[in-house]
Formats: sequence, C-alpha cells, structure tokens
Amino acid sequence: MGSEGLEYAASMYGQGIIESVISALDVARIEVPSWALGRGGTRFAVYNAPSDAGTLEERIGRAAAVRDLTGWGETVALHFPWDGSTDEDVALLKGLLEKHGLKAGAVNPNLFSVRGEGVLDHRMRYGSVTNPVLEVDDAANDHCLWCIRVMRELGSRNLSLWLPDGTNSPGQMSLYEQADRVEEGVRDVAKALFAEETLLLEYKFFEPAFYSTAIPDWGRSAEIARKCGENVRVLVDLGHHAPGTNVEQIVTFLVREGVLGGFHLNDSKYADDDLATGSVDASRLFRIMVALAEGAWRGMMRLEDVNFMIDESHNVKDATAEMIESLMNIETALARALLVDFEALKKLRPDRGAPDVERSEQVLYGAFNTDVRPILEERRRRHGLPENPLEAWLDR
Amino acid sequence: MGSEGLEYAASMYGQGIIESVISALDVARIEVPSWALGRGGTRFAVYNAPSDAGTLEERIGRAAAVRDLTGWGETVALHFPWDGSTDEDVALLKGLLEKHGLKAGAVNPNLFSVRGEGVLDHRMRYGSVTNPVLEVDDAANDHCLWCIRVMRELGSRNLSLWLPDGTNSPGQMSLYEQADRVEEGVRDVAKALFAEETLLLEYKFFEPAFYSTAIPDWGRSAEIARKCGENVRVLVDLGHHAPGTNVEQIVTFLVREGVLGGFHLNDSKYADDDLATGSVDASRLFRIMVALAEGAWRGMMRLEDVNFMIDESHNVKDATAEMIESLMNIETALARALLVDFEALKKLRPDRGAPDVERSEQVLYGAFNTDVRPILEERRRRHGLPENPLEAWLDR
Amino acid sequence: MGSEGLEYAASMYGQGIIESVISALDVARIEVPSWALGRGGTRFAVYNAPSDAGTLEERIGRAAAVRDLTGWGETVALHFPWDGSTDEDVALLKGLLEKHGLKAGAVNPNLFSVRGEGVLDHRMRYGSVTNPVLEVDDAANDHCLWCIRVMRELGSRNLSLWLPDGTNSPGQMSLYEQADRVEEGVRDVAKALFAEETLLLEYKFFEPAFYSTAIPDWGRSAEIARKCGENVRVLVDLGHHAPGTNVEQIVTFLVREGVLGGFHLNDSKYADDDLATGSVDASRLFRIMVALAEGAWRGMMRLEDVNFMIDESHNVKDATAEMIESLMNIETALARALLVDFEALKKLRPDRGAPDVERSEQVLYGAFNTDVRPILEERRRRHGLPENPLEAWLDR
Amino acid sequence: MGSEGLEYAASMYGQGIIESVISALDVARIEVPSWALGRGGTRFAVYNAPSDAGTLEERIGRAAAVRDLTGWGETVALHFPWDGSTDEDVALLKGLLEKHGLKAGAVNPNLFSVRGEGVLDHRMRYGSVTNPVLEVDDAANDHCLWCIRVMRELGSRNLSLWLPDGTNSPGQMSLYEQADRVEEGVRDVAKALFAEETLLLEYKFFEPAFYSTAIPDWGRSAEIARKCGENVRVLVDLGHHAPGTNVEQIVTFLVREGVLGGFHLNDSKYADDDLATGSVDASRLFRIMVALAEGAWRGMMRLEDVNFMIDESHNVKDATAEMIESLMNIETALARALLVDFEALKKLRPDRGAPDVERSEQVLYGAFNTDVRPILEERRRRHGLPENPLEAWLDR
Repeated sequence: MGSEGLEYAASMYGQGIIESVISALDVARIEVPSWALGRGGTRFAVYNAPSDAGTLEERIGRAAAVRDLTGWGETVALHFPWDGSTDEDVALLKGLLEKHGLKAGAVNPNLFSVRGEGVLDHRMRYGSVTNPVLEVDDAANDHCLWCIRVMRELGSRNLSLWLPDGTNSPGQMSLYEQADRVEEGVRDVAKALFAEETLLLEYKFFEPAFYSTAIPDWGRSAEIARKCGENVRVLVDLGHHAPGTNVEQIVTFLVREGVLGGFHLNDSKYADDDLATGSVDASRLFRIMVALAEGAWRGMMRLEDVNFMIDESHNVKDATAEMIESLMNIETALARALLVDFEALKKLRPDRGAPDVERSEQVLYGAFNTDVRPILEERRRRHGLPENPLEAWLDR
Repeated sequence: MGSEGLEYAASMYGQGIIESVISALDVARIEVPSWALGRGGTRFAVYNAPSDAGTLEERIGRAAAVRDLTGWGETVALHFPWDGSTDEDVALLKGLLEKHGLKAGAVNPNLFSVRGEGVLDHRMRYGSVTNPVLEVDDAANDHCLWCIRVMRELGSRNLSLWLPDGTNSPGQMSLYEQADRVEEGVRDVAKALFAEETLLLEYKFFEPAFYSTAIPDWGRSAEIARKCGENVRVLVDLGHHAPGTNVEQIVTFLVREGVLGGFHLNDSKYADDDLATGSVDASRLFRIMVALAEGAWRGMMRLEDVNFMIDESHNVKDATAEMIESLMNIETALARALLVDFEALKKLRPDRGAPDVERSEQVLYGAFNTDVRPILEERRRRHGLPENPLEAWLDR
Repeated sequence: MGSEGLEYAASMYGQGIIESVISALDVARIEVPSWALGRGGTRFAVYNAPSDAGTLEERIGRAAAVRDLTGWGETVALHFPWDGSTDEDVALLKGLLEKHGLKAGAVNPNLFSVRGEGVLDHRMRYGSVTNPVLEVDDAANDHCLWCIRVMRELGSRNLSLWLPDGTNSPGQMSLYEQADRVEEGVRDVAKALFAEETLLLEYKFFEPAFYSTAIPDWGRSAEIARKCGENVRVLVDLGHHAPGTNVEQIVTFLVREGVLGGFHLNDSKYADDDLATGSVDASRLFRIMVALAEGAWRGMMRLEDVNFMIDESHNVKDATAEMIESLMNIETALARALLVDFEALKKLRPDRGAPDVERSEQVLYGAFNTDVRPILEERRRRHGLPENPLEAWLDR
Repeated sequence: MGSEGLEYAASMYGQGIIESVISALDVARIEVPSWALGRGGTRFAVYNAPSDAGTLEERIGRAAAVRDLTGWGETVALHFPWDGSTDEDVALLKGLLEKHGLKAGAVNPNLFSVRGEGVLDHRMRYGSVTNPVLEVDDAANDHCLWCIRVMRELGSRNLSLWLPDGTNSPGQMSLYEQADRVEEGVRDVAKALFAEETLLLEYKFFEPAFYSTAIPDWGRSAEIARKCGENVRVLVDLGHHAPGTNVEQIVTFLVREGVLGGFHLNDSKYADDDLATGSVDASRLFRIMVALAEGAWRGMMRLEDVNFMIDESHNVKDATAEMIESLMNIETALARALLVDFEALKKLRPDRGAPDVERSEQVLYGAFNTDVRPILEERRRRHGLPENPLEAWLDR
C-alpha cells in the first residue's frame, strides 16, 4: 500500500493521534504460545502436516520467525511437560530461547495429560487439584511447584493456571467439596509464589468436563483470587464464556477490582473453538480493547501491564501463518481502540445528564470503521519490519 | 390415589425417612407473587381473559385460594406501584392481606414502569439507579426508600431488588460508569435498611437491556453484596442465566459464602421465559433442591431460611392453576431432594480416595425417579388440604 | 471528510471497482418499516418520548425524512391493523405515501394483537392460524386475506407473514397437530395470492412462545414454502436464530434452492434483540452480504431481487436516528461485500486441489477492513444527499 | 424392590396398560456402539484405565455382557476402520459377533481419522466428501463403498453417515461449493445402496469444524435426503443441536415427512457432550419418546422401526456401567412415554375448540412422574434378566 492510507488517516484524526497510537502499540506486549506454533486438533483428529513444526526446537524457531516478521512475541508462553519434563529439558529450552533472543513468558502447568509414568495416570479423570485421590492431588500440586521452579529458572514471573477440573455427572462429586478443594488447590500453589510473581487463574464455562467445571466463570475466579492472595489475578480466555456473554464488561469489572491478569486471545463461534483472534467477531475484540483503552485513559491500569497472550488451536491453516494473522488482527483491534476519543465521549455522556447515545455510538464505531492498516504499516516500517508480515511468511 | 403408593415409598425408604421429608416440607416456605396471579404476557401481547384476576383485590383473593388449596403461599410478594402507590393504597392492601390471613412477603420496587406523573418518565430508558439523568436516578432511589417504609408498614423484612439497568448499544454508557453507579445505587438503598432486614439483589443475563446488563451474573451480584453490607444477599432467578449454566453450582457458591438470599422460581427453555417451575426441566429443579438439601445436611444453612419465591408469567394457562401446578412441582422436587441419602453418598465418595461414581449417580437419580406424590398427598391429608390441589381448583 | 479517503480506496481497488460498487448499491433496495419509526419497547416498558413519532402521519413523515437523507427507504413496510384497520384508513395511508413520494413495501398482517372487538380476543393466546378455536383461526385467515386486498390497493406485491404461533408448555398442543395446522394456515393464505405476488414466510427460534414455535427454523420454513407453492419464499430475520447459528450458510442454502425471499435486518447479542443492524456484530452482517454478493457473482440471484427490510425496535435511541444509523451500517456491509474479489478467491480455492486458506481469508477480511465511508460519501454526493445523513438528522 | 411398586402402578394405570407397556418395550430395539464400550475422551486427554475394554474382542465381549444383563443391545453398531480395516478383520469381527450371539448394527464409516497409509492423510483437514483435493474426496467415497460391502458381509442394512466436514474460517471454502459437494458426496454413497438398505444421515450444529458445518441442521439433512433418494433417512443425535432447540418437534417434523431414520442417544448440558442418556435432562428424553409414542398412536410410524442407537463417550465412569445406566434411563423414558394416554389428551385438546391446557399438562407429566422401575423390573423378571442390571454389573 502507498502513502494514501496514512494521509487519509491523518486527515481524519490528525498526525498527533496517529503518533500516540503508534507509541501505545510500542509498549504493548503480546505473548505467543509454544504449543500453538505446532498443529492443533479436535477430539476427533489431529492432522499433522509434514511442514508443521513438530519438535520443540522447530516450534521455538517458528516463534522467532513470528517475532522477526511482526515485532510481537518477544516472550513465548510455555507448557509443561509439553515443552520439557526434566531439568535438562529446561536447560535445553533456555538455550533455545536465548539463541533466538526470545524470553520465557507465562509458564503453564499441564494438569490434564497422562504422563508415561508416575501417579498422574488414568485417575486424572477425577480431576487435578480437586482429585479425591490423594496421591493424584499431591502430584498435581507437585507439578505446579516444579513449574514455579522452571519459571524462575527461565526468568518468567507468570504462572498461568488452567484447571481441567470438573465433573461429568451430577453424582460424581459434591459441589461443596469441589469448591473446597479448588480453593485449597489454588492456595497451595499461590503460597509458593514470591510477591513479585503472579498466578494467572483461568475460568471456563465448560470442557473438558461437561456437567460442572470447578471454576466456571469470572465471578468464581475473582472470588478465589481474593481469598488466595494479592498475586493471584484473573486470566480471561475469550473462548471460555457462554454465548452472548458481554466479555468487555467482565474485563471492566476485573480492571475496577484490580484483579485483571491478562488474556488468552482467540475467537470462537460456538464454544472454546480457539480460532484465529478476530477472525469471527472483530467487533467484540475491538470492544474488549476499548474497555482496556478506557481503563488506561481513566488511570486505572496501564496497557503495558496487560498480559496479552494468544491461545489458539491451528487445526486447518499453517500454524505460523495463523499466528501472524492473529497478531495482525489483534494490533488492528488495539489500534482502532486507541483511536477512540474518550474526551469526546465524556462530553457526549455527561456525568449528570441525558447522554447523546447516537453520537457516542458514532465515536466508537467511527474508530472501528477506520482502516488502520496504513498506521500499522507505518509502524512496521519504522521498526524495519516487513509491511505485510503474513505475505512475507507465505512468500518465504 | 390410594395407599399403595405410600406403602411402596415406605418399602423403599422406610417410614422414618418419609416422616422426615414431611417434617422438612412443613418448615419450608414458598412465597407467591401478587403479580403472577394475574395475566402475564410478552412484548407482543397480553391476552387478558374475563376470568383473569385483574384488580388487586382479585389477585389477593386468588393468593388466598392458592394458600387454601396447597398450604403454600402464606406470604405474598408485592410489587409497587403495581400493588399501590400511595399510603392509602398500602393501608388497603394491608387490610386485604389481613382479611385473608395472608402476610406480606418481599416488597419489590418497580423501577421500570413509567409513572403517570413525576420524573420517572420516558428518560427511564437510560436506567434506574444507573441513570445519568440526576433527577431520574434520585426518583428511583426515592421509590426504593418509600418501598422500605411500605415493607415495614406491612410487616415484611425483605426488599427484593431487580434493576432493569443496562444499555442497548456499545456507545450508550461507559461500562466503568455503569459499574460505579450500580454500586452506589445499591449502597444507597442498603444503608436505609435495618440490620434485621434483607436486601435481596437479583442479577440477570439479559433483558430488558440487550447489549449490557448492569448486574449480569451472580459474580457481580455477590461482589456488590460484599461491598454493600451484611444484609445484602443474592437472589437467584432460575431464568436469569445463559443456557447451560450450572445453577446448582452457583447456589453452592452462594451458600458457602453465606450470601444466598433466595430464589425466584420458574422454568425456561431459552431465556427468561417465566414458565411454570419444573414444567420444562424437572431434573435441574431437583438438582438445585439437592444443593440446598446438601447445604442443610452440612449445617451450612437451614431450609427454613431460604426465601423460595415464585416469579412467573402466566401467558396461556389460567394464572391460579399454573401457580398451583408450579407449587406442586416445587414440592415434588423438594421432596425428592430430601430423599437423597447424603450419608450414603459420603461413603461412596470418600474424602480421600477414588469415588464410586456409578453408584453415587444412582443414589441421586434413585431419589429423582421416586414417585413422591403419595408422600405429598399424605402430607396434605394431615393438613386437611385437598389431595390434588390443582384438580380441586379446576373443579371449583 | 475530504478526498483522501477516496484516493486511498482507489489506490487499493482501482477506480473501476469503486464505480461498480456504487452501481451495485444503486440497484439495491432497502425497505424501512413504518413501525420502527416510532418508539419500541420490551415486555417491561415502552418509553415514549415527546419527540417520538406517534401517529401514522408522523411515522410516514419520518420515513420520508429517512429517504431524503439516505436515499434508501423508497418503499415502506406496513403493519396492519397498526397502520390501519379499515378501507378508509388504507385510503388515507395511500394518500400519505403518495404525498411523500413513497411506495408501499411488504404488507405485514398482525396476528398477535388483540383487537378492540371481534373474535381476535384473549383466545389468540392459543395461536393464530394454528389456533384450535375455529373462529379465531378463521379470523386470523380473514385478516390475512384483507391484508392481501390492502396490498393490492397500495400497489405492493409482498405479503410478509410472521406467525406468533407456538406453545408455552409441553402439554398444550400436539406437535403433530401444530405442524398440520401451520401448513394448512399458510396454504390458505398462499392460494389467495396471484403468481406475481410473493408470500414471505418467517421462522423464529423462540418468542413469543417459549416451549415450541410453530415454524422454528429455516428448514421448516423452506419445507412449508415447497409445499405451499412457487410464490412462497423464506424471509430471514437476523435475530431469529439460536446463538452461534451460521446465518450466511442458511442464506446460501436458500439462494441455492431459489427460495430466499428477503431479510428482516437487525442485530442482536442474545435473542431477537432488534438492535440497530450491524451495531453488535459487523462481521456477521458483512459475511451475510458476501453470501449474497457471491450468489450474484455465480448468477444464482440478483441483488436487486433481494427484499432487504429493516425490522428493529428502537427502545433507547431516537427511532429515526437509529434507522439512519442502521441504513448506513447496511450500506457499509454491502459495499465491503461488493469489494470481495470472487475471481481471486476462485484461483486461491481451485475446484480440485488444496486451497490457499490463508490468502483466501485475507481477500475476505481485506474487504472488511477497508474503510468504505469515502465511497459511500461519493455516492451520496452524486445523488445530492448529505455526506453524513446521521449528522444531518441530528443537526436538523 | 418388592411387589408394592407394581401394585401401585397397577392401581394408577390398570394392569392392561402395564402389560401394553411391557409389550411395546419388547418390540423396541436399542443398538449399542462398539466404540462406546471402550474409554472415551476429550481433545485434552483420554484416561485409559487398566479395566477398560481395549481390544475389539474385549469390546464385543462387553457388548455381550450388556445384552446379557439388560436384554438390550442385540445389535452392535460398528465403526470402520476402528473395528477393522481389511476383509480379514471383518471376518474376524463376524466370528466374534456370532460367538456372542450378537448381530451387526449400523455400519459407520470413519471419515475423520488419519490412516497409517494411503491418501487419507493430513489433507483430511479440508474435509471428507467436500474435500477440494480430488484424491482425498475419492478415498473418502471409496471408504464408504467398502463399508457398504462390509455392511452386507455382516448382515446389516444400515449405513450411518456422519460427515466431519466443515470449515474453520470464513475464507476457507465457498459455502456454495461446500453445499454442492456435500450433496454430490451423499448421492454417490446413496446410489450404491440397495432399496432395502438405508443411509442414516446425521447433521450437527458444530464440531469438529467451528465456523461452518456442511450439514448443520435437520433442515439441511432432510433436504439432502429428499434429493438423494428414498432410502436416505435423517439420524437425530441428541447432542447435535443449539442449546434450547426443541428436539421433539424436529422428531415430529421428520416422522410426518417419513424421513426419520433413527437416533444417536446421549445427553448434554452444553454441546455434544456425549454424556449418559437421560442423566442431565430426563424430561427432554421423555418428551422425545412421547413424540414417538404419539407418532405410533397416530399410525404414522411403528416403534419397532425406529433405530435407537446409543452414541456416547464414557470419559469418567466405567464404560460398560455407563452403557447399562444409559439403557436403563432410555427404557425408563420410553416406559413413561408409553403411559401417556393420547385418547385422554385428544378429549382435552379437541380438534376444534379451546384446549384444557392445565389438565393436558397433567396427563403428560403424570406419566413422567410415575415410577416405572417396578414395571421394568417385572419385565426383566419375565425375561430372566437381573432385576437391577447396573448393580449386577458392578457386583460382578
């Protein structure tokens, strides 16, 4: 694209705003997950293609390629034991990251996969930290503690905890005991953390359990966070809600209470589909970014403190390409949100008086309808990045 | 029905259990709402039939009939200004209740209907206690304060607050300001209450607002309750959740935190359909009752402290008949839940060991599959009530 | 806005494409409904503001204003008896339309509102054409036949039929009899139409009935259309689906079978929210327009034959403003869809070979991300319309 | 249980009705799937326990045990290549079935699993019969044709076709081409069948594809069936609908059109959870059975012609125990439905007149609330089966 787009954007918003958007983007961080650089799948099948990154080495290599092309993804989220199960593995991983100039992002303890040996066997079907079988419960906790050590070894400060816990039938477990156990389980992990370390706690509406999920919604996640200490924060995975849920409102609640930890970004049409972020509902992604931009504008949070992490499953497209597409969709949404004029909205929606709903809507969607690609291209030029990272990858 | 059913029940559970079920039912209270004894409708139409109770006097009369036939509904939930807008109206209402030997139940301030005069006019479309228009916000608060006085005048201790507040478009109101305002609004009402009085605070997934609802879920309701004082409790309306939400789990969370206030009972297939309780999904109603029975068994709550209230909209059936049907479905679910053997479940699901999931499920659904009608009939006989209240009403 | 935007668009797509988009928009027709130019509401309240169009004369006047500002809405959809119940009313309406240079669009028989007199009374709660009460069923049919006469008197060729029929409880009506009756009911109306007239048949997931809806989905609507004759077509209301439903796929099915009749455009987050079209999910609206643009590109339909009709409920915003906003969102979506390069897609997705999924996605969303406002402004300039119709209305 | 239950049931319905229920159950057939007798799982994990049936031999052995204990499951649904991929495998399987006195039920071609060799490789991610890659499309068709030969070799007359086809992003495939291809694909399989053989065609709302599913609903399935010939019928999987969908109404539509093929029975709370049938929503299962019982009562179908098949995923419980539990829940629902007095309903809901909605509901739910366990036990006694098959299995 040529310079016409940038001129057009400048004609609408002024060069100053465009520069401020670029500056804001420069401080934001988006983390790329090691697991989504390989092939994803469903319960029915995983279609591994020869060109897929299979080994850890290949996946970290792809992460570096993504970073080189997009400027995003300096930190890489890791999943254990997928990315290693021994101290030697961790040393190897550390070397790989350093070699590529990458940093370790959030460390994710895998609490659902059966291990080749040890007590984390088929009895995991009763849960991880809510498992009534004592030795499985203990082993789940031990794995989290080992992950905390890995986290420190790799220089990360975030432990990202997603519990697969839940039940598949009404009689399986007392919901009272489930609630007790999940609180104890999170507390045991949280107390192993230092003050400057953060436990990011996910919630999920359903899956892999289909009758009850131990932490089914943000309300429960925030309640546990409040009980388990200052450094437990809520992680919002965009695919973990009932259809129709107003996610930007949840984000607002969490920002107000100071417990927003970060995001697992993806998109979905039905459930936890883990599709490319912004590829199904670009408006929703924009509105979530607006909630953050407004929080920053109000001085209630800083954009640079938000842990934007991608969590997707690349079942059909090339994983690296879909990751790049996702990052471009995310920066698009973020740039649009940064164009929202909150001062103008404040005047249109006075503190005590009738709002100008029509014009307020236009302020919001005017930003959404803006083609921010020229702004993003300009930013990439300044950073020496390819103008179109996706094309650059596909043409490699 | 004859005595065969009771003999069958006794052969399965023993006479002692049956007596304990009857005793437990005797202390439970189910409140009947004045508004649902008249004709309900949808946004498209209300089909008032000549036989419908139209006036307040008629509706209170029907409440008395329901109580006479079922034994339930000694207290009647009231809605203002639907049930009166002046002190004189309230005096009249008080007399009506006394005449029929009924008591005032929860008082519900109506914060959504336009009044004939005053500032609660078309600007209510911006909300009640979140309304940015100062005088509408104030008038909403004033109405709540007046309702508290009515509550005391009528001898009730429960104020039931459902806020219609929300927005219909993303630009309409800042979600941050909405959150601030709703907290302030509830706090202003709560602080007007005495310690022994309770504010029951509802949440709702959507409707009448379609983009955001000020209190969209239990998590937000509980958060506000926690901030606004000891006597604010959460009210669970069965129709106010996303499809698939595990309501019995929410009930469990609220019981554990000591903030469960009560229920608006009804049934639904899609949204807040306000159908006869138990008429669509009898299993869910049963499981909710089981969560309560288990809470009582654990000593975390008492069944007699739960405010069971019906909130339905009788659009097709005769309102009184549907109310009686609902009460019969509720006592059916409750009786079944009281048959659940929690001691047996404890053995099958030991604290530290693998659960016997298959047999636990059977304990639960064995109770559900039991025909408790003979037990309920026996209880009615003892109380001098007709064996089949619905038939008695239809045959009147 | 200045000329920069148009230059930018031309730099991306070429002037020829931009001209073809403008030409395609020139043949499309979007119908505005008389009812949505007045205040809408929910089952809880309707907040009529003094500035709202109340009378038929006012609403038709607003329709003319919308047409004058946007160029859309030459035909006005009508609803009877809301817009008249006698032949005299119809004559008056005809005069009103002529005075403003408007034409009658689809005629909508109202089969749910209780009339002041006649047999369409409270027994309508059992349904319209599926009503087991013979005289109500007959009266519903009579009203449709009268509406067909009105249609001809007003020069319209479309009868738009939305049946409120359904049941609120499992026992209310046999689903077999419901299915028989709805087919008979539609057939009776359809056979009164001439060959060049069209019956547009809606379906709806739920509401106002909450247990079953007589025509719950496109499959049933298409089945009835097939049985009832060539001139029965399916009308797709965007709010009448379960959450997550792929509406553009349904549109594709209907285009392929030649039974797509038209659209009731609106937007929703939960159910039939009737919000401003494109204000919640702009991507979905775009994808639906793409399905139509592709159908046209394939020669399976013509854009000018699609009955685009708006069906919204303006509960909060000024109704006229929200109508204009909706029209602008619709033309935005349509213009973007017309930018999609189906020839390029064909090459990327060959008939027999592996698809280039990544680049195909970019073709689609590249069009979506384009700021088409300059194109729409250019088109308005050529037609002598205000550059920003919404601002023009708000500034009036 | 003793004889009290049977006496109670007889006191309510009369011995004649009870005998007719038993007789009706005797002609019904419920098919058990070979795959669900082994361990199921999710996309996250499969927790294989040592006691699980792993080999085909073990799974067929469990099927025989289920049949021996419950009397159901004389036919076993089979899945290829899971249950064999060569003619030798089929011969072995045939011998296994014969050895246990079992019969082959529906044959299910697996069109989603990558094979160890051949062209059904990673490119299956683009679909099976809608795959744009010619050789994959051909291989999918070839596998179906081989399955037809297997079907005949095993003496089955049902081919059960579930297509995993769909897309994960809006750009992936033209929805028009998808629709064309799926019709061609089904037609190619259907034309290979003899007149007395049936193709049971499934539809599914979503999963494993998350943007579009090639056959997303009953409407599309019925449309394809109509186009592809007399012996293509629709298979209703209870978990393949949007939340809230009225499945019994869909069943009614299919019975009326003569295209109901059968069921994949299971239960769900959110999506295609594949839980034990009747374990979440017993009322819905009952209402579906009522739709069938009514269809039989109307002479529009015969209960013995319905292909009741179970399709579940046993992730937590012992697979055999959960299968037995499911069968017991299904016979419970069926027995209750057979107790519904359609003659009484006919009088309460006259063809031309106002319905007695209240009493009709009672007829329906009176049957639902009946404890039919004594009837089922009596039937088992007559057939020499254990009184409680589940306990018998758990106590083995």
